[in-house]
Amino acid sequence: MSKYDQYEGFQVDSSANYTTFTKRKFDTKPFGDHDVELKIECCGVCSSDIHTINGGWGRNNFPLAVGHEIVGKAIRIGSKVTSVEVGDRVGVGAQSYSCLDCRQCNNDNETYCSKQLDTYGSIWPDTGLVTQGGYSSHILTHEHWVFPIPESIPSEMVAPMLCAGITLYSPLVRNGAGPGKKVAIVGLGGLGHFGVLFGKALGAETWVISRSHAKEADAFKMGADGFLATQDKDWNVPHKMTFDLVISTANNFGSGFDLEGYLSLLDVHGKFVSTGFPEESTLQITPQMLGPNGCSISASHLGSRKEMLSMLQLAADKGIKSWVETVPISEENLSNTIQRLEKNDVHYRFTMVGYDKAFGA
Amino acid sequence: MSKYDQYEGFQVDSSANYTTFTKRKFDTKPFGDHDVELKIECCGVCSSDIHTINGGWGRNNFPLAVGHEIVGKAIRIGSKVTSVEVGDRVGVGAQSYSCLDCRQCNNDNETYCSKQLDTYGSIWPDTGLVTQGGYSSHILTHEHWVFPIPESIPSEMVAPMLCAGITLYSPLVRNGAGPGKKVAIVGLGGLGHFGVLFGKALGAETWVISRSHAKEADAFKMGADGFLATQDKDWNVPHKMTFDLVISTANNFGSGFDLEGYLSLLDVHGKFVSTGFPEESTLQITPQMLGPNGCSISASHLGSRKEMLSMLQLAADKGIKSWVETVPISEENLSNTIQRLEKNDVHYRFTMVGYDKAFGA
Repeated sequence: MSKYDQYEGFQVDSSANYTTFTKRKFDTKPFGDHDVELKIECCGVCSSDIHTINGGWGRNNFPLAVGHEIVGKAIRIGSKVTSVEVGDRVGVGAQSYSCLDCRQCNNDNETYCSKQLDTYGSIWPDTGLVTQGGYSSHILTHEHWVFPIPESIPSEMVAPMLCAGITLYSPLVRNGAGPGKKVAIVGLGGLGHFGVLFGKALGAETWVISRSHAKEADAFKMGADGFLATQDKDWNVPHKMTFDLVISTANNFGSGFDLEGYLSLLDVHGKFVSTGFPEESTLQITPQMLGPNGCSISASHLGSRKEMLSMLQLAADKGIKSWVETVPISEENLSNTIQRLEKNDVHYRFTMVGYDKAFGA
Repeated sequence: MSKYDQYEGFQVDSSANYTTFTKRKFDTKPFGDHDVELKIECCGVCSSDIHTINGGWGRNNFPLAVGHEIVGKAIRIGSKVTSVEVGDRVGVGAQSYSCLDCRQCNNDNETYCSKQLDTYGSIWPDTGLVTQGGYSSHILTHEHWVFPIPESIPSEMVAPMLCAGITLYSPLVRNGAGPGKKVAIVGLGGLGHFGVLFGKALGAETWVISRSHAKEADAFKMGADGFLATQDKDWNVPHKMTFDLVISTANNFGSGFDLEGYLSLLDVHGKFVSTGFPEESTLQITPQMLGPNGCSISASHLGSRKEMLSMLQLAADKGIKSWVETVPISEENLSNTIQRLEKNDVHYRFTMVGYDKAFGA
């Protein structure tokens, strides 16, 4: 018998068999004074799950239950918890720990803390246990990483906001997206669709850039103000130096990724921000590509607790509706869903549901 | 006989013979209502001169007199000129035209105007004449590009500020260098030495990053607060995430250019700005290099008229002394000076002087 409490989850055992999920029990870390324990209700499916279990990102402490767009009910709170009450509907995203004491943490940059731990696949330093994600019955973490969810947003729609949503929301607000600003979202997938929804909700003129016109109708349904397809000849020419911000959600920087074209869209000191973290891709940049408009290239990593709360409030206030397909969680369905996501067969995000049936009410 | 007025200058005739200068007359554009004509007193020597005449940048309308750090006396002004009077000591930098009518020009971003013309090697659209630089008896251009020089700065010291100086001053001020900010200057050459002088004058904690310790004593003499040599093992480790801004003046991005190390120095959303424009060099960037601190990479091109005037005032107010070696202008001396600059045999900038002797008083 384990000395730790145990939860139940769907784990992957190796990157060689990353589409095979096995339901079993695993140890969970001891409950702390600042911790909140969730009984999970649903969990979004993120490309990070694939990059992790297939070994692409190189960190994979198996056996591992992934999933980091978690919505559930708080069923236990530590003695020092002040932000959550038992019974609250709350969310947990992709990060579950930072020191909360360094300069980064004290400046709402806790996602850049050098001691950060991911919601799954990281190792709790005190016990050596591997953090386990949301394809599980429960999760347990510090209240800083547990977010109360406004009542009006359905669980399956808010789940994917907790990673994909905040990944777009944070660079939008940090780079001034709002009335009078013109923003382009490169790539209309799970991330990109939140770029459109939040860009519009923040009041920015929001365009979509895609390879083909296949998703053009969807983009306009989401509220996009314009659509550009990079397969069109001279697609960027009429739009040079007219954008303030280009946020890329591209999952690889190979052929078809027209970096020079994207940069040419930017006004003076405009910003190109990458939110995708391709497994093995390199941007080839010459200062001559940056010189004509003095633009910048950067990347962004999740968003702060403060931003998470403001994003959820904005989603509630504006009635933002994520485009979500729900799938009952099971070994077979997780395997199929991961494979569909790999083929981009998704419009535009999956949320695994039916946890009561899988794990009991 | 030419239908145009003529000036006299030291011209290069081909990139095959880019170290051969020949003194001869050339046509100059017709005098306009907003133009100022300078009798040149001295001119700084810039790496751009070499990149242009050796063909490295691919634009070279020969025969060409280069030189774009020009100080002289205004000897004629157009009927609509308001900012300069005959007899004023004034400067001309690397740019001599923009439309002054577009959004960029109207937002103090005239160096990013799509119609900009360089002080040398560009073509005046109305006449087809090639713009000729400051290794010449005179120069003529629109008053927007002619800068009154505060009395207290010696001509040979102010000349190199008009390109090298503004190239560092603009990204320093545009990226917030000042009290409480920590700035690193990569490379201590002609550009880099102005990075230190202006960084300090603006009140920022200013460090120098160089390959070896050879220039360490000079850096501290210029006022640097710290010095790092990338040849030292783990040179960056104790300084990770402690800088707000890294300005690179590197002239190539090949071996020894430790981009990942420079980026690691930056605090969250810190900025890496390239001011050097290497002839053929590519930065290899992965989002993973930008992710840990959400830093950005950008480039900068000269600086606005407003910044030029504030830089000159700051130089006067703080008594900034450029490190300059003066060389009397002649065919032979230009050839030797260009070759010394190519070998980095300069501490830290050359100014060609003795124009009265070369061209007559």
